[in-house]
Amino acid sequence: MTERNLSMLCDFYELSMSNGYFRSGMADTVTYFDLFYRSVPDAAGFAIAAGLEQVIEYIKDLHFTEEDIDYLRRKGGFCEEFLDYLRDFRFTGDIYAVPEGTPIFPNEPILTVRAPAIEAQLIETYLLLAINHQSLIATKANRIVRAAQGRTVLEFGSRRAQGADGAVIGARAAYIGGCDGTACVLTDRMYDVPAGGTMAHSWVQMFGDEYTAFKTYCELYPHNATLLVDTYNTLKSGVPNAIRVFKEVLLPQGITKCAIRLDSGDISYLSKKARQMLDEAGLTDCKIVASNSLDEYLIRDLMMQGAEIDTFGVGERLITSKSAPVFGGVYKLVAVEQNGEIIPRIKVSENTAKITNPHFKRLFRLYDKETGKAIADELLLWDEAIDQSEPHTIFDPNATWKKKTLENFVAKELQVPVFIAGECVYESPSIHEIRAYCQEQLDTLWDEVKRFENPHSYYVDLSQKLWDVKRDLLDKAKR
Amino acid sequence: MTERNLSMLCDFYELSMSNGYFRSGMADTVTYFDLFYRSVPDAAGFAIAAGLEQVIEYIKDLHFTEEDIDYLRRKGGFCEEFLDYLRDFRFTGDIYAVPEGTPIFPNEPILTVRAPAIEAQLIETYLLLAINHQSLIATKANRIVRAAQGRTVLEFGSRRAQGADGAVIGARAAYIGGCDGTACVLTDRMYDVPAGGTMAHSWVQMFGDEYTAFKTYCELYPHNATLLVDTYNTLKSGVPNAIRVFKEVLLPQGITKCAIRLDSGDISYLSKKARQMLDEAGLTDCKIVASNSLDEYLIRDLMMQGAEIDTFGVGERLITSKSAPVFGGVYKLVAVEQNGEIIPRIKVSENTAKITNPHFKRLFRLYDKETGKAIADELLLWDEAIDQSEPHTIFDPNATWKKKTLENFVAKELQVPVFIAGECVYESPSIHEIRAYCQEQLDTLWDEVKRFENPHSYYVDLSQKLWDVKRDLLDKAKR
Repeated sequence: MTERNLSMLCDFYELSMSNGYFRSGMADTVTYFDLFYRSVPDAAGFAIAAGLEQVIEYIKDLHFTEEDIDYLRRKGGFCEEFLDYLRDFRFTGDIYAVPEGTPIFPNEPILTVRAPAIEAQLIETYLLLAINHQSLIATKANRIVRAAQGRTVLEFGSRRAQGADGAVIGARAAYIGGCDGTACVLTDRMYDVPAGGTMAHSWVQMFGDEYTAFKTYCELYPHNATLLVDTYNTLKSGVPNAIRVFKEVLLPQGITKCAIRLDSGDISYLSKKARQMLDEAGLTDCKIVASNSLDEYLIRDLMMQGAEIDTFGVGERLITSKSAPVFGGVYKLVAVEQNGEIIPRIKVSENTAKITNPHFKRLFRLYDKETGKAIADELLLWDEAIDQSEPHTIFDPNATWKKKTLENFVAKELQVPVFIAGECVYESPSIHEIRAYCQEQLDTLWDEVKRFENPHSYYVDLSQKLWDVKRDLLDKAKR
Repeated sequence: MTERNLSMLCDFYELSMSNGYFRSGMADTVTYFDLFYRSVPDAAGFAIAAGLEQVIEYIKDLHFTEEDIDYLRRKGGFCEEFLDYLRDFRFTGDIYAVPEGTPIFPNEPILTVRAPAIEAQLIETYLLLAINHQSLIATKANRIVRAAQGRTVLEFGSRRAQGADGAVIGARAAYIGGCDGTACVLTDRMYDVPAGGTMAHSWVQMFGDEYTAFKTYCELYPHNATLLVDTYNTLKSGVPNAIRVFKEVLLPQGITKCAIRLDSGDISYLSKKARQMLDEAGLTDCKIVASNSLDEYLIRDLMMQGAEIDTFGVGERLITSKSAPVFGGVYKLVAVEQNGEIIPRIKVSENTAKITNPHFKRLFRLYDKETGKAIADELLLWDEAIDQSEPHTIFDPNATWKKKTLENFVAKELQVPVFIAGECVYESPSIHEIRAYCQEQLDTLWDEVKRFENPHSYYVDLSQKLWDVKRDLLDKAKR
């Protein structure tokens, strides 16, 4: 396929505004933007941050070609000086972000940009797109993996994904969220996520009969034989033929590792019947893979009913996050530099949930030293710090009389520098490190926060100073 | 960004099966696959076909690089002869497809592939992905456009799309479905879909006050001023400031064309109040744009309540098809050539809806000559034809006693040749032609099929000969 320059993947208003800042002498005004989300998909207790790696690639590559500039000139409305400026455009600002795999909560900055207005504006759309998409899928994958309680979960959804990136990068995010692998070859090739797969119904149909199809496959791939048993009739034809072929082809070679896949019918019933038939045939090492419109809700119920499933292949409901297919991240101006001073900005709204947390901030997670569990997150002004040697009082910003004083705690800053003055200063971990880090971080959350239904609402508090700044700005806006 | 070779965007099992066919001497066996879907998203009466253009690009580009082959060798399980074969791989088969923009119904082939087994198998995942994604978005966009009853609809969803292609190609599909434009610059640049956009809240926040922000914008873009009026308070601050600036900056230049955008609060109430304020100020040419979590359901209700909205900007609920984010297209083997004869194949299932229509087929749409409306679609065997000079009897395949004899009708074949012997023989229409063709085709559907709730079920019938073939294969499978 042709090379893609994603620098033009932006909303047109980013360009209108940028040209406007340029012409109004505000090109160099330094701005601060926070990228955060307001509510967790599936009414869950937390999300998983993902997509930073693609943000880094994009920022490093950011540039406008002569063809892009010609296109903009034809569109009209842009001054020649601005088009000239775009010719040498590159990102010169700072980006701080929460590492991929970190559990994140509403209203805390996943990513913060400090950059001249035009630069900060032009990158808005892609930053949101990258973080929204992968955080959505990593979060959904993690729900599915938790529902499977340690059974293997594979991502199978490429064909139903929303576009090529939806498939390829979606499978990357699913691995971060805890999936064990994917069916997508390109995700393995590009991102080192282990891919695998054996046969479709067409393989079975291609041969005159099911037995021959299974036998041929086992002879070709004796060490990786997962036979799809539902093309004609699962229990009357598929499983008996699989058993016959495993006995005829694999057992004589001393191979006991094999599997069948169920892709239709009542998976709970069929898996139990199939398990019984396999066990009676002595094939106790034969695994059962199940696929067909699975998600965390169905997997939870299958587990409760004692379904005999070793591996879940999850397709469309994972790769599109079907029950909640939007991650609502936003990117809001929180401060502007004037004469070297950082001036906080706020967006007021009739919907109080949409009022932003102003100013350049720091984000800390507070852990109880004894249990190792996360107690709350706290947002501070950029020049504040937490003294961990002293008792530390936090309060709920929505109910300020609710206070808590922490004594035996550790505060960990969540955002790390990613770009400083346009240079990438962040060494990206491997995908396997990110996945392991995600699992470790999840262990610091209380089970109550991880519940599927009506989870405990984790606290994201504001420091007293930040709260004062916010209240003052709201008071001023109301006057 | 780096160049992408989408040839590796396939499920791993396509490669396992291909290597298997190769080793089993079935590489040259000619196969027939149908791509079809089983139920319409949102329980609607029809879908819109889209994605063929991306299928054509993909097929033309299909190849495996040395790096791809090295990767596969490292994965293991592939024989060297097969890897050699991939080195020179290109598509040599035939593809027939329904043109983009055509209304399509469940269980009819949107696309049919006739190719050697390996070729037909390797392209499965991407074909499904491309057609599923764009048909999903074109179908959703068309629902939204119909709800808007002639008001302008713009696609605004890039930031919430599922990956870069989700945004860029999704906006292409939205235009096919009837949207008037997009916010996505890259979609304009790559696919000629008109993009536009003016300001975000950050523009308003950047200036000390709303009035200055609006004034600066109108001075910069007097002919394209859409002012976002909800940053502080829509009716008390935003609309009055917009009116003041329009009067001070635009009217003296003789410009009456302008707009405001509402992005929060109760859009129905605010639009009526704003309309009244604008009209009282003499700004009757000022348009009102509304955005904020819109979809066909909300737009239908806003229209019923007489909301004064001229343009709907639709974001996340369109670009992800939020209420139904999966288009369930499948790709099934329907026939195999043996000794020059086409042998039909069927996939049986305990779920009768999942039983396939076997054989290489032709798809016709039957129109009433008097009204010009579509009566039914009919699937025929590949060597059958419809004699339009004679009365023609069709019957419901699910209730064979339901018959209808057509007299004054026209039969139009829906699939056209796209690739013949590996060569592209299809001249792609422009995106604007596709959009216009879609609109024309929609005019041939009865309103009953287009209803949002509980639409009339359009008939997709089988010819007597095809029905006989299917019944025989089912009888044989049951024995």
